[in-house]
Amino acid sequence: MTDQMKAITLASRPEGEPKDENFKLETRDVPKPSEGEVLVRVHYMSLDPYMRGRMDDAKSYAAPVPIGGVMEGGGVGEVLASEAEGFEPGDMVFGMFGWATHGVARAKDIRKLDPRLPATTALGVLGMPGFTGWYGLTELGRPKAGETLVVAAATGPVGSMVGQIAKARGLRTVAIAGGAEKCALAQDKFGFDAAIDHRAFEDARSLRKALAEAAPDGIDIYFENVGGKVFEAVLPLMNTFGRIPVCGMISGYNAGALGGVEGQGPDRLPMLWRSILVKQMSINGFIISNHFDHYPAFLKEVGPMVASGELAYLEDIGEGLENAPDAFVSMLKGGNTGKQIVKLV
Amino acid sequence: MTDQMKAITLASRPEGEPKDENFKLETRDVPKPSEGEVLVRVHYMSLDPYMRGRMDDAKSYAAPVPIGGVMEGGGVGEVLASEAEGFEPGDMVFGMFGWATHGVARAKDIRKLDPRLPATTALGVLGMPGFTGWYGLTELGRPKAGETLVVAAATGPVGSMVGQIAKARGLRTVAIAGGAEKCALAQDKFGFDAAIDHRAFEDARSLRKALAEAAPDGIDIYFENVGGKVFEAVLPLMNTFGRIPVCGMISGYNAGALGGVEGQGPDRLPMLWRSILVKQMSINGFIISNHFDHYPAFLKEVGPMVASGELAYLEDIGEGLENAPDAFVSMLKGGNTGKQIVKLV
Repeated sequence: MTDQMKAITLASRPEGEPKDENFKLETRDVPKPSEGEVLVRVHYMSLDPYMRGRMDDAKSYAAPVPIGGVMEGGGVGEVLASEAEGFEPGDMVFGMFGWATHGVARAKDIRKLDPRLPATTALGVLGMPGFTGWYGLTELGRPKAGETLVVAAATGPVGSMVGQIAKARGLRTVAIAGGAEKCALAQDKFGFDAAIDHRAFEDARSLRKALAEAAPDGIDIYFENVGGKVFEAVLPLMNTFGRIPVCGMISGYNAGALGGVEGQGPDRLPMLWRSILVKQMSINGFIISNHFDHYPAFLKEVGPMVASGELAYLEDIGEGLENAPDAFVSMLKGGNTGKQIVKLV
Repeated sequence: MTDQMKAITLASRPEGEPKDENFKLETRDVPKPSEGEVLVRVHYMSLDPYMRGRMDDAKSYAAPVPIGGVMEGGGVGEVLASEAEGFEPGDMVFGMFGWATHGVARAKDIRKLDPRLPATTALGVLGMPGFTGWYGLTELGRPKAGETLVVAAATGPVGSMVGQIAKARGLRTVAIAGGAEKCALAQDKFGFDAAIDHRAFEDARSLRKALAEAAPDGIDIYFENVGGKVFEAVLPLMNTFGRIPVCGMISGYNAGALGGVEGQGPDRLPMLWRSILVKQMSINGFIISNHFDHYPAFLKEVGPMVASGELAYLEDIGEGLENAPDAFVSMLKGGNTGKQIVKLV
């Protein structure tokens, strides 16, 4: 066991896109676990869009990372030392260890991994992003066979879960993704019935035309995880009794808490409001951390599908803690393909 | 039985506020009921905000009234002749007879009135408006004791139902109404804990201040029936897990289907979208005509409350079919106090 560890802290708050100077790589002493805690050597850490929100000082659903504090995040790793019942050195666990090579956590805040599955799956397809997609689709989207679903960022860990579960339940699935390569992936790997490259369309109106062709019977469920231009394109195509689970908006994260999302003119709010009424839509925002009581049901349904290969997933694994900031910024711009992970060991 | 009847037809489509020239008073022969139908002499007809939408040619949740067609609407009256089993001359019934002194309807489209209650209650407190308030609040608002509810047009037939049912279930109730007189009514007659005169505030920001004082623990349910400035004032005060049933927007009806609602700047949609996510809100549009399967449950709960006087209601009864257009336009501007009805007999 080394006595030193590395961590990335928040050096300053970004304005818009995060830059190198907002992060600081620090060397620290490895902490010792207290009674009821374990010390973990992190093998893989997760990078997720929500982390951009934590860098701001704005009121949100979670407290911001303080200046000088370690960047938050989940990771999987090996228990090095345990002062907690039920955990032994060598156990592989998931926990919120932050952007760091080591972390100490209370036993109740970590979870042992299923040794039959790759450890990285606990960060993506079977972790928070996959669970987000499954919960939002099944609980709030209420999918019915024969309906049409649209999801953006469709090759990401949320979108690919949403698309595959919807497909398995008999829906027509339409992917929106950035670039021809991701569109091909969406159809070939994740089984979407159609895929649309949003970069090929200048504005919401032209994107809407393509969507209308891909969804000739209208859209029953729009799983909202990007906001902005895509939402604007989708809204007029929503069917009566349409459902929009809202789980996050990567296109808005860099704009600040109340900032302007691209391409939205002055008359959009009344249009949305009237659409909600006329189409009798159901729009539900959710933060997945409030719904972990459904996590066992998720693992029970989706775990076997992952183990058997029936449900595909894609990971984009970078190397080295020092490269995490670059990988993070790139991910916010869609530069990753699949769940963004950083390998630390 | 007279052989002539009167009806008001749609002479032309209004732009903005309806004018006299958009309506035409016509004299016609009284129709005869066919097999399975009844002929009804209408005693009271209902005027409701949704009728403004039917005057437009825009795609909406119901077909527009055609030019030359009788204006749509519900009414209560006496059966003059019956070709339908179960109905006899003298029966008092509710049906969609339009803006007219007489109407023919199929037996399955009308409903006998409870003779123990005034016939007009079938148009307001126990009719479509009251049912709208009850359904939206109880099914979509999911009220819990100790929470805070806000509703606008609070002395109207929808708002006064919402406020009283919420109060009966242990919520703090905040009324928004137009003018000091209606505010006093809201508190004295309908038992609201607080009442705010929206006319006393120039913009959403100042209205929000007053709301924040009246709702010191934030707002859990905003029953949306007006839109515009009130919604803008309410949004930042919504609590986490807040619910917004959306049943109609009188402030937008005159602006056309996709028109601009007053006081809404360019950055509102992203703010709304982000609020939905961060506050994990549930927003549900509904058209009450799709939920009549709940009507018996409504009558069972609220009927006795009306009969006993436990639940108050207010009616604004005009006289004469020829005065219906003026009463209608006045109602759209909030000139009525209580459910707007026109007495025809």
